[in-house]
Amino acid sequence: MRSVLVATDRIAAEDLTRLSKFAEVVEAWRMNDAEILPSLPVVDAAIILGWPSFFTRENLSRMKKLRFIQTVSVGVNQVHFQDLPVRVTVCSNAGAYSTGVGEHAWGLLLAAAKRIPQADAAIRAGGATIEGFRAEAKDVMILRGKTMGIVAYGGIGRAVARFARAFGMDVVALTRRRGGDKGVRFYRGAKGLKTVLRLSDAVLISIPLTRLTEGLIGARELGLMKKDAVLVNVSRGDVVNQRALYEHLAANASFSYATDVWWYKEGKETLETEFPFSKLSNFVGTPHISGPSTVASGEPQGAAVTNTVRYLRGLRPRNVVDASEYQRSG
Amino acid sequence: MRSVLVATDRIAAEDLTRLSKFAEVVEAWRMNDAEILPSLPVVDAAIILGWPSFFTRENLSRMKKLRFIQTVSVGVNQVHFQDLPVRVTVCSNAGAYSTGVGEHAWGLLLAAAKRIPQADAAIRAGGATIEGFRAEAKDVMILRGKTMGIVAYGGIGRAVARFARAFGMDVVALTRRRGGDKGVRFYRGAKGLKTVLRLSDAVLISIPLTRLTEGLIGARELGLMKKDAVLVNVSRGDVVNQRALYEHLAANASFSYATDVWWYKEGKETLETEFPFSKLSNFVGTPHISGPSTVASGEPQGAAVTNTVRYLRGLRPRNVVDASEYQRSG
Repeated sequence: MRSVLVATDRIAAEDLTRLSKFAEVVEAWRMNDAEILPSLPVVDAAIILGWPSFFTRENLSRMKKLRFIQTVSVGVNQVHFQDLPVRVTVCSNAGAYSTGVGEHAWGLLLAAAKRIPQADAAIRAGGATIEGFRAEAKDVMILRGKTMGIVAYGGIGRAVARFARAFGMDVVALTRRRGGDKGVRFYRGAKGLKTVLRLSDAVLISIPLTRLTEGLIGARELGLMKKDAVLVNVSRGDVVNQRALYEHLAANASFSYATDVWWYKEGKETLETEFPFSKLSNFVGTPHISGPSTVASGEPQGAAVTNTVRYLRGLRPRNVVDASEYQRSG
Repeated sequence: MRSVLVATDRIAAEDLTRLSKFAEVVEAWRMNDAEILPSLPVVDAAIILGWPSFFTRENLSRMKKLRFIQTVSVGVNQVHFQDLPVRVTVCSNAGAYSTGVGEHAWGLLLAAAKRIPQADAAIRAGGATIEGFRAEAKDVMILRGKTMGIVAYGGIGRAVARFARAFGMDVVALTRRRGGDKGVRFYRGAKGLKTVLRLSDAVLISIPLTRLTEGLIGARELGLMKKDAVLVNVSRGDVVNQRALYEHLAANASFSYATDVWWYKEGKETLETEFPFSKLSNFVGTPHISGPSTVASGEPQGAAVTNTVRYLRGLRPRNVVDASEYQRSG
């Protein structure tokens, strides 16, 4: 029987039971490093949430049978691809977060478009009046009839496209795929990205962070967008160039950025930004809560187990990651 | 030719031109009270936004030909029904705000369900960490699979029902009408209200404020709701009993109230509440911005003119108000 190492405590008992029908389950999260050590040579597969601290280069070299890593997260940019032998297939959990992260993205868009956090804060601070806000009413964006841009069209993008259509918006999306989806116009490549940015009143960033997409949205791309557009990010902070964004927000009061994701600093996502975004009234932030709140529902873990079972049963696993998009030359 | 008094400056030139094909237009908002006086005896109809200061009992008695009042607002609770002769038909602007107010309502629901203003404020205050919020992730509500309750099912309610279905929610609604709508279960009367409140994870208040609905949501009704429900109000503050709501929020940290509308104090809606709602983290407020932002789009004014033209052409106007629901005995 094969052996699956589980490095997270967030998987429900029934999902572990389901997994144990196809493999011996090594519940690494219950063990200290010394206890894990004897299991490493027999492990065929691993399910991880974040990069486990004991997945050092040394320990990975002990995992001679390891051929499959399934992440519970949808993003895999935290995986140390450079330390993994080519025999190891890494699978993301794309699609498993579409509901929770898509809902959060729509909440961020409406919060920025309707200026909800700003209004709530002004009322809490006291001194606000209903009349005083009447002049600001024209700054509120009505979404109906506007254009929603999606960069790019994966599981979360598809969920957001469904919401946008229910709100009476036109939908344009960047995609790699052929074919289409009802009510969505597709664009491809660098030129397609420019078109989506130009056409849209609101843009969702839902593209994975890879070496190809780091800093994808810089000064030039922001400059293509409408002056009063809303940019929503639920992917990773580093898809957007931090300095370019700060300068664009500071110079364009009617442009908004609403994000659940933050830039990395020494390999760690942190609310401590290089520029004082919190001083800007056209910035809305939540502390990367969309993924964890979806994990709280148990759905992504179930999907991770299901895909691992596919692998164990000899079926082709879904969401195989192209490691070449993550390995850096430097 | 008949004469229509226009008491608001918010109507677009093309809508006034359209109106002038069917009646002489008295642009009262351009005049002082002395200038308006000579026109009063000839006025057949009036379009108002809020109750005009010169609509005193004395001036109304001079408007002997007045038979029709069209409000630009959807709510008509500010109309002085007690001063109007029975010959005057009052029409609300129901339906004209469905898009803007419906979108705002959905923004308030997501803001509260995803705790967006709270998170944004915590980040701005400094000292927040991404890790620190992980524990709160379980408090975020995933809407998919939950039940949306709508009290009651008018134009705004229908818009919100459409959003709820796109989010994968079940929809239950209080209505007076017969018949149904796709994917919505209807309930009627006092018993129906209780059922809607009991079943729902999120409840929208979109019922007009009348003498029948003032204080409709009190301690007993709040007590019927789920402990972690979200209550959204885009109707009028006074549909909810202020003391009962405050006590319910203070006692139930996981219950949320998100509102765009505020209680009346001496006949005027004000952010100055009787209880310190702004100190509660399960309260989200915006300063009645949904209506004005919709007015900024010009749509409600266009609808008000269209309905007035119906009246002038001898057609049956839409949204005729039952004055008996507004007149008070006291």
